[in-house]
Amino acid sequence: MIAFFLSRPQLGENIGAVARAMQNFGLKDLRLIAPRDGWPNPRAFDMATHATDILRQAGLFSTLADASGDVHRLYATTARGRDMNKPVLALEDAVEQMVAETAAGLKIGVVFGPERTGLENDEVAQCSTLLTIPTDPDNASLNLAQASLLVAYEWFKRAGQVRNLHATSSKHASFIAPEQQSPAATQAQIAGLLGQLEESLEAGGFFKTEAMRPRMWRNITNIFTRAGLSEQEVNTLRGVIRALRTYS
Amino acid sequence: MIAFFLSRPQLGENIGAVARAMQNFGLKDLRLIAPRDGWPNPRAFDMATHATDILRQAGLFSTLADASGDVHRLYATTARGRDMNKPVLALEDAVEQMVAETAAGLKIGVVFGPERTGLENDEVAQCSTLLTIPTDPDNASLNLAQASLLVAYEWFKRAGQVRNLHATSSKHASFIAPEQQSPAATQAQIAGLLGQLEESLEAGGFFKTEAMRPRMWRNITNIFTRAGLSEQEVNTLRGVIRALRTYS
Repeated sequence: MIAFFLSRPQLGENIGAVARAMQNFGLKDLRLIAPRDGWPNPRAFDMATHATDILRQAGLFSTLADASGDVHRLYATTARGRDMNKPVLALEDAVEQMVAETAAGLKIGVVFGPERTGLENDEVAQCSTLLTIPTDPDNASLNLAQASLLVAYEWFKRAGQVRNLHATSSKHASFIAPEQQSPAATQAQIAGLLGQLEESLEAGGFFKTEAMRPRMWRNITNIFTRAGLSEQEVNTLRGVIRALRTYS
Repeated sequence: MIAFFLSRPQLGENIGAVARAMQNFGLKDLRLIAPRDGWPNPRAFDMATHATDILRQAGLFSTLADASGDVHRLYATTARGRDMNKPVLALEDAVEQMVAETAAGLKIGVVFGPERTGLENDEVAQCSTLLTIPTDPDNASLNLAQASLLVAYEWFKRAGQVRNLHATSSKHASFIAPEQQSPAATQAQIAGLLGQLEESLEAGGFFKTEAMRPRMWRNITNIFTRAGLSEQEVNTLRGVIRALRTYS
């Protein structure tokens, strides 16, 4: 199952519409990050009609990092390309990948930005993959209700096909062979690694000016969120940082 | 190209939302049949944002028969089954058939009923095919904005594939390459980075025993070869290593 994350949603109506779309396609896990008009918002409940359970059970968080600690992979929905070295998948292909990842036991989140501005670069940097919805190139702007509906619909279709596949043929039952690999790191574990790295870089004078710092740090964050790190690799990298720091 | 028919739509906002969905996916031909609140409806124009051209050019009719004179095949969108001897196709399959029909020179219409009641049996009877959108069986009710968006999206995807508009295969993750994106690092550049890292780790006492070293180093190598690093990112990471080493 996948979770939907709404970062700083503005209108309660849109939060309700997202819940409704989730309900139509069998999704339940909604997480709200700093909704502009506070929470709970009666306009969301009015709009959700039969999906109010999802709203009542929605998690409320102040940052994407807080909201996604238990999640292994985040997909950033974004209309325009970002100047980031990160894989970009069209919706259908992204959903195919999500289905394989959830079949392998990973917890997946899809992150939607605020209505007007979309996700901030710092938020995108925390995601492993960019997800774009193909549209007419002259009219690319989908609103929050539309984007969430299309993602939920494709998920439902694709996950349903896989369920049917499993039911009819056990040959296709395992999508990913995880071998004896270490389990995938959660966002919280990656955040812990990045926190250690940032603190160490600061101590080492890496950030030459405060003005350059956000961009430099985002570039570094991107490298590690993109890499699909395992728990063991996170521990290895933490050991690497410790070892480099003890050098002098 | 296909046309959307709204039979007796109730809320102007929903008419606007349909126009918006059409615009997002390259459709233009909207036909309104006896909208409840008259026409033009300012609420529709408010909701349509950039899609007001579609509303201005929308045809206004009093019956489905009047509206569809020039059309060869009508598809009735319907949530519940009808007691009619008529083919029922899930959205994806319906769209595939529409694509084939338009390729053969036929003009196609998709008919959406009023928000609360859906299409009347007399209207369904004028359609060649029933179109259902797969949803969670416990929560099948899609509103007009949702249903029209999903049909437009599937049409756009499928027609686009047939026209072969998207030359690039989206099957595999393509790393985004916007203008200012640094080129992908060569193997040599990555090897340079890894050499610097290995030397630094050795100096920092990271490799506790020679026996463990090959495996530890392979694990670290894996992380960085998997990440699809750019030249700029290699340089950033080399700066990171330098900064960590100067810490003490």
